[in-house]
Amino acid sequence: MKLVLFEAKTVSDVRELLKEHLKNIRLKTEEVDLINSFGRVLAEDVISAEDIPGFNRSTVDGFAVIAQNTFGATESLPALLTLAGEIMMGEKTKVKLLPNQTVKISTGGMLPENADSVVMIEYTQTLDSTTLCVEKPVAPGENVVSKGEDIKRGTVLFEKGHTIRPQDLGALASIGKDKVKVIAPPLISVLSTGDEVVSPNKPLKPGQVRDINTYAISGQVLKWGAKPETFGIIGDDYDKLYSAVKKALESSDVVLLSGGSSVGTRDHTVRVIENLGTPGVLAHGLPVKPGKPTVIAIVEGKPVIGLPGHPVSAMVIFELIVRPIISILLGRPENYGGLKVKAKISRNMSSAAGRQDFIRVHLEDRDGELWAVPILGKSGLISNMVEADGIAEIPSEKQGVLQGEWVEVELF
Amino acid sequence: MKLVLFEAKTVSDVRELLKEHLKNIRLKTEEVDLINSFGRVLAEDVISAEDIPGFNRSTVDGFAVIAQNTFGATESLPALLTLAGEIMMGEKTKVKLLPNQTVKISTGGMLPENADSVVMIEYTQTLDSTTLCVEKPVAPGENVVSKGEDIKRGTVLFEKGHTIRPQDLGALASIGKDKVKVIAPPLISVLSTGDEVVSPNKPLKPGQVRDINTYAISGQVLKWGAKPETFGIIGDDYDKLYSAVKKALESSDVVLLSGGSSVGTRDHTVRVIENLGTPGVLAHGLPVKPGKPTVIAIVEGKPVIGLPGHPVSAMVIFELIVRPIISILLGRPENYGGLKVKAKISRNMSSAAGRQDFIRVHLEDRDGELWAVPILGKSGLISNMVEADGIAEIPSEKQGVLQGEWVEVELF
Repeated sequence: MKLVLFEAKTVSDVRELLKEHLKNIRLKTEEVDLINSFGRVLAEDVISAEDIPGFNRSTVDGFAVIAQNTFGATESLPALLTLAGEIMMGEKTKVKLLPNQTVKISTGGMLPENADSVVMIEYTQTLDSTTLCVEKPVAPGENVVSKGEDIKRGTVLFEKGHTIRPQDLGALASIGKDKVKVIAPPLISVLSTGDEVVSPNKPLKPGQVRDINTYAISGQVLKWGAKPETFGIIGDDYDKLYSAVKKALESSDVVLLSGGSSVGTRDHTVRVIENLGTPGVLAHGLPVKPGKPTVIAIVEGKPVIGLPGHPVSAMVIFELIVRPIISILLGRPENYGGLKVKAKISRNMSSAAGRQDFIRVHLEDRDGELWAVPILGKSGLISNMVEADGIAEIPSEKQGVLQGEWVEVELF
Repeated sequence: MKLVLFEAKTVSDVRELLKEHLKNIRLKTEEVDLINSFGRVLAEDVISAEDIPGFNRSTVDGFAVIAQNTFGATESLPALLTLAGEIMMGEKTKVKLLPNQTVKISTGGMLPENADSVVMIEYTQTLDSTTLCVEKPVAPGENVVSKGEDIKRGTVLFEKGHTIRPQDLGALASIGKDKVKVIAPPLISVLSTGDEVVSPNKPLKPGQVRDINTYAISGQVLKWGAKPETFGIIGDDYDKLYSAVKKALESSDVVLLSGGSSVGTRDHTVRVIENLGTPGVLAHGLPVKPGKPTVIAIVEGKPVIGLPGHPVSAMVIFELIVRPIISILLGRPENYGGLKVKAKISRNMSSAAGRQDFIRVHLEDRDGELWAVPILGKSGLISNMVEADGIAEIPSEKQGVLQGEWVEVELF
């Protein structure tokens, strides 16, 4: 067992291997209505075919002017301009401003030809039906969004692989994208194993525990934009496991097995994978705590991952290995993922050199400084994860961190 | 206009008013399968009816022992124990350990009576079919999760109002909750107004712009766990607006109007609200930049919010006013919401005293320190929000921030 640890591939080795195996995978795409594209991943670059706005647009209620005509204007010596009409919203006026002319305009209105700025209504007085007093000068461009100022024609607004946020829906609407081509969510099979594991809707007998991993892992699958397909609990039996994994491989893009923390089940998992196709197991055991007993495999082009049985370990390995796989299958940038913040660790934590340690932490604001308070406890305890705000990493080259040292915390 | 600014209620005034008006609202609940409860909000406290685990459980593969029988054991002088069988996974053994007896156990197995710890298989040698050499002592409790150590019977695992994360799905499964009572998502009507606004699927005529706000705001509604119902674009016409808002009030829990940045539409909005029911408008104008021209109302118990027409302003006001409303309607804790980080501002920014300023910023890591780089530009530009990573606040009591000063940035 110890030898395996030292020979083991690191997390980044495994990620590179998986990337290599998945590099020619064809991503499935689909077209959805703009309103349904929130949270989805763009399947193509989005380039604006237009200038946005398509015209010089007022940002205030007031009067469109030639800025030069207002220079030097004050309350006691206002500029007197001739009113030449009013701009209707959503229309192009036929008026073309002559020197010392002005037209009334509302926020969002299209400036008439020759106008280069807008005086706010607060700085004007209407003398009579044709005369406006301007009491403050404006600079050219003032209170105007000029044509193309928001988005220039030809701009790559979003690159392929971008995950759509609320403001992006707005930007896509602004350039007239009412249909959006997105990546179809990868299907991920979730299988639990172990003779001691029972479904949450069944009463427990002594020695039995409920299936935690199917649910925690399905939640992670959903969180990262893929679709879980649950297969329930498979007993510690080679044939049952073989048929279940075979079926899962046929219907989904990734197969995740978890539970089965006993040696027997782990052996079954490896044998099933090796017998289902090539290249089979790429790595067995990871130099990570928690999460050592992990099996990484590719079977006929599809990742099959044997997650540790302990829920905390399974969730950590999911974030380290499965999340990057989902990113590949969604065409997301490689580093897409959990948000990281820096915090000071509240106590000394030791770690073996050559091993990445992941510590569940609770975050606390102490006098304006962020502190990460480790939640100690066994990796089998789900309550541990419930209390945690995130996970701090001790990199493999370090043998620990000292109290007050800065650590990176990935937030849940 | 300026007078309105100084008389205006602050954002926290408005939040308090809305809270008061919504305090007796009855939240709708529904029961969903555990697997479908990800991201939903709990409608009741969840209390564990059981100890988890329900028995003392091994966390390793090895041999269950009475710790005392291993004290002093070394490789050269191992403790010799009598093998009394093997624990089957998921079952309670009939074996009751006698002094100097041991049984084989797998990870996750149930300890036999009298055993208090487990020796890892790595530190043992099987001498013959009935004799085990233990080469390292264990302490009582070592390699064991004891009954109730994860979750004690009677523990309030989650409080009402908690939003369910992946690990919470696992914890709910562990205590046997296969059905979960959650709050039904509030329905939020989204109406755009303005004669210059057209749907994204239509070609633009000069002077027209596309409807950005329906999409950006619907995205925000989805992001915070409510359900948008879009009403499309209503022209600058009192009667049309009246019937649309009336219909929206009948079918949803909150009505959001946006666009209509011109004085005329703003006036319509206020008149429509006043004529639809009581108490009507609570606040008109907020001392906030961007976002001043906001209308806050309650009509027959339901919030009706007139958001500013500029997309950036509308989105900021949504986060300040509408997100807390959604939290109330979902029974979430008051402070639920956007994640905040601290960063140093990269340039001086001025602000009027008595006004809350919200600056779009891009975050940069400079030598391990987080800096917030303001994205300057008009609040009408959606591209502004696309580039931003979050929003920094200059509180109303400050007249600005200096370069290098710490600011709080709420992330998107």
